[in-house]
Amino acid sequence: MKKRKPQDSFVSSTEFVLPNDTNTLNNMMGGRMMHLMDIVAAISAQRHSGRIVVTASVDNLNFTKPIPLGSVVTISANVTRAFNSSMEVRVVADLEDNMRGIRERSNDAFYTFVAVDQNGRPIDVPEIEPETEEDWKWYNGAMRRRQVRLILAGRMKPEDAEDLKALFNAGKPD
Amino acid sequence: MKKRKPQDSFVSSTEFVLPNDTNTLNNMMGGRMMHLMDIVAAISAQRHSGRIVVTASVDNLNFTKPIPLGSVVTISANVTRAFNSSMEVRVVADLEDNMRGIRERSNDAFYTFVAVDQNGRPIDVPEIEPETEEDWKWYNGAMRRRQVRLILAGRMKPEDAEDLKALFNAGKPD
Amino acid sequence: MKKRKPQDSFVSSTEFVLPNDTNTLNNMMGGRMMHLMDIVAAISAQRHSGRIVVTASVDNLNFTKPIPLGSVVTISANVTRAFNSSMEVRVVADLEDNMRGIRERSNDAFYTFVAVDQNGRPIDVPEIEPETEEDWKWYNGAMRRRQVRLILAGRMKPEDAEDLKALFNAGKPD
Amino acid sequence: MKKRKPQDSFVSSTEFVLPNDTNTLNNMMGGRMMHLMDIVAAISAQRHSGRIVVTASVDNLNFTKPIPLGSVVTISANVTRAFNSSMEVRVVADLEDNMRGIRERSNDAFYTFVAVDQNGRPIDVPEIEPETEEDWKWYNGAMRRRQVRLILAGRMKPEDAEDLKALFNAGKPD
Amino acid sequence: MKKRKPQDSFVSSTEFVLPNDTNTLNNMMGGRMMHLMDIVAAISAQRHSGRIVVTASVDNLNFTKPIPLGSVVTISANVTRAFNSSMEVRVVADLEDNMRGIRERSNDAFYTFVAVDQNGRPIDVPEIEPETEEDWKWYNGAMRRRQVRLILAGRMKPEDAEDLKALFNAGKPD
Amino acid sequence: MKKRKPQDSFVSSTEFVLPNDTNTLNNMMGGRMMHLMDIVAAISAQRHSGRIVVTASVDNLNFTKPIPLGSVVTISANVTRAFNSSMEVRVVADLEDNMRGIRERSNDAFYTFVAVDQNGRPIDVPEIEPETEEDWKWYNGAMRRRQVRLILAGRMKPEDAEDLKALFNAGKPD
Repeated sequence: MKKRKPQDSFVSSTEFVLPNDTNTLNNMMGGRMMHLMDIVAAISAQRHSGRIVVTASVDNLNFTKPIPLGSVVTISANVTRAFNSSMEVRVVADLEDNMRGIRERSNDAFYTFVAVDQNGRPIDVPEIEPETEEDWKWYNGAMRRRQVRLILAGRMKPEDAEDLKALFNAGKPD
Repeated sequence: MKKRKPQDSFVSSTEFVLPNDTNTLNNMMGGRMMHLMDIVAAISAQRHSGRIVVTASVDNLNFTKPIPLGSVVTISANVTRAFNSSMEVRVVADLEDNMRGIRERSNDAFYTFVAVDQNGRPIDVPEIEPETEEDWKWYNGAMRRRQVRLILAGRMKPEDAEDLKALFNAGKPD
Repeated sequence: MKKRKPQDSFVSSTEFVLPNDTNTLNNMMGGRMMHLMDIVAAISAQRHSGRIVVTASVDNLNFTKPIPLGSVVTISANVTRAFNSSMEVRVVADLEDNMRGIRERSNDAFYTFVAVDQNGRPIDVPEIEPETEEDWKWYNGAMRRRQVRLILAGRMKPEDAEDLKALFNAGKPD
Repeated sequence: MKKRKPQDSFVSSTEFVLPNDTNTLNNMMGGRMMHLMDIVAAISAQRHSGRIVVTASVDNLNFTKPIPLGSVVTISANVTRAFNSSMEVRVVADLEDNMRGIRERSNDAFYTFVAVDQNGRPIDVPEIEPETEEDWKWYNGAMRRRQVRLILAGRMKPEDAEDLKALFNAGKPD
Repeated sequence: MKKRKPQDSFVSSTEFVLPNDTNTLNNMMGGRMMHLMDIVAAISAQRHSGRIVVTASVDNLNFTKPIPLGSVVTISANVTRAFNSSMEVRVVADLEDNMRGIRERSNDAFYTFVAVDQNGRPIDVPEIEPETEEDWKWYNGAMRRRQVRLILAGRMKPEDAEDLKALFNAGKPD
Repeated sequence: MKKRKPQDSFVSSTEFVLPNDTNTLNNMMGGRMMHLMDIVAAISAQRHSGRIVVTASVDNLNFTKPIPLGSVVTISANVTRAFNSSMEVRVVADLEDNMRGIRERSNDAFYTFVAVDQNGRPIDVPEIEPETEEDWKWYNGAMRRRQVRLILAGRMKPEDAEDLKALFNAGKPD
């Protein structure tokens, strides 16, 4: 299977924050944002693989800014790395203030999807071929995040997680 | 502030999987499940703190079984540990097959919420007082998961994460 | 068919009142509450019967308290009595004020469901075996409510409604 | 306050049954129908009273025909009788089959609304002045249905329900 | 095929403007109104043709009044003219203020639908037989609007648009 | 006010077609597409003007391809020309088939928005400065489309529509 670049799976979607998306402080509810991020990330994984994809896990999903009612939010995603049938997708959300002309990061997360055939069985996907320095940063970090996921799920022993051991000698991660 | 038990914040919600919740394989979409889990987890954190709460992060959210259209899903949550104004909530989803009389785990995750006042500023919440062996397991693991979150967010140095270091000497985590 | 206890079909669901659920007084709209009660009641009838169920009628649905935006509402249901293929389900809704730590009844109702096979034809369901005094109260009242329904639908003559006649000699009903 | 005719509060709404309205048999879910009927009935009570209205109770809501996905449903409502601040509204739903050119009753019900001022306090509404024979039938029956509601709610003694006693001597009700 | 009158396809639907329908000025969003108008217009075209219909184009959709949250809106539609398998439907929306007892036009538009068979292929529909003066006005204008649509889509030469040429000699259109 | 380029207001949003978006042929309903197009177009007009915007009219909205359930649709918009407080926005929708790697135009339309202040009063917006040949094509056509709108609304006499007269001498429009 021919390798594909992270840019090939780049997807972006711009949305309005409507009343039903908000909590009693008139800010967007976390669950609504997760739902939108899942849809954009799934389209990205589908574009990379040319397959139906299903969500397998979500990690390091952070909410760093409240998003008020009426905001315009742009959610962007691309695949960072593929492992057999699974793909890690980095998703970010940016809050756009058209009145004041500024744009700020409100969320980032890693979603993992599995490509499946029509019967729901996992099926291999193309590998990722990083291009830019940024691409390589996310590509390399993907291995460490995968090891954390496997260890926390009890499917890998900590002593086998080579990349994570390196992390504990190297300070601040990507 | 008087400590509260995990059981005090236990919340459970039973839902039907409707057509609009599903993907083209007729299974529940990941984003919809995250949204429902967020609502149940938020009610739990609100019950623990008696405060408005906002989602701060989500970790280790796993999808282990497809959930077909028409399924009955029960989502349950309780606070595992509180750190100043933040609370870790464990959320699980179980798939109930009333026709065959069986029940299976489909999802688990850790959601972190922050309690805020009417102006959105963080405010301290009661600590957790674990009762059962199970309570203690999640309570102790909460510190390790918090260290992973802080390290991955670049807000803690790996060498300062005492509980995580122990993990790398002790094998499989909780 | 083996009898089942009311407790076996107990279902409970806790929900947030969101902006789109509310009217211009910022209280939950009646129709939205009916919809949520129908879903919880249907899951209860499905759990009792192990069958697909369809709503047949709704009676004595009362709204006793306004439910403000942002409220947490718990809806609970269980089957009170079965008649061949039909089941009467008692549904209640309680309003939970986590800030003030109180809980109040906002709604109660009787929903009747019919169990059907895959072609939509009625099919018999297990009978109810009441356990507690409370169970018996709802079980006995179910016959009277059924007679009222049949009389009002013109499918029973008032003079044949033995339980209702007793009511008119006995004062306040359950 | 000037009396108003039932026809003055007549409201009708025609809707499509969409996928998310349906159950696993591909028929409209009961809760969705109740929600639509509540909205049409509330508009009718609001038109009669010129006030904000809130749902107080629902009775004798019947489901007599399954409503398949893609159906066109017309819901109609008008006020049958007013008692101080409360109004009984009769609501019916008809299923329209444009392919075969037929129309059939699928639901009927009585919704009771209370007119309120901006602070949510009950406020008197105009009385109903029946015109047609049909109007009178529903107007007279409204008193009996009100007595059943009050008795079942424990707010009236059966021996005081004059109209209901008459019913038990007269056979089939309206 | 027997001709049908415009009145035969008249459909009307009355709706409440809910929080999620509104923008940050608390008025109904344009997109929501277009969606409701499309549903009512489609039911009208379906009633005229007795067929499944799909939206082909929308023209001259005007928004002349803001529609505040909590408003009651009545959307009405009927077929003005049919051309082989396509039907022009005029749709209007009226804003009803029950508190003040007034009613005002907020929107009008022309939607064009195509009748299709179960495989989605166009299929002929009955012609329109205008009755009233009003019917004739819309019937005649339909030809001019169709020519504008075809010209703007590049499927007709301006010099072949006989009715439009007349317009440019006759002043204000209908 | 400084002029702005069409590219400055370019907005794009990628969406999944979900079950509730579809009709009985399992294709996306027209009204749902109009709603999505309105949101993307409104964000574009808001980006151009830095103001709250309200939909004023929609024209030449065409549906050229059915959009099946499960499709990925990308909706793009930019302002083509501004007239005082009003902006014409061209919106297109493209259907993306990731399985087969193709992309096709399904819809195009012209939405007109008016910029308003916090009290809903019209307020002037920057003019458009076309850059590319494509920009100039839409910019010039905008005047003709505006004249058609004004004539059809009875607010301009056909003999005063200079650009339209030219059209009737020049053949196929843009």
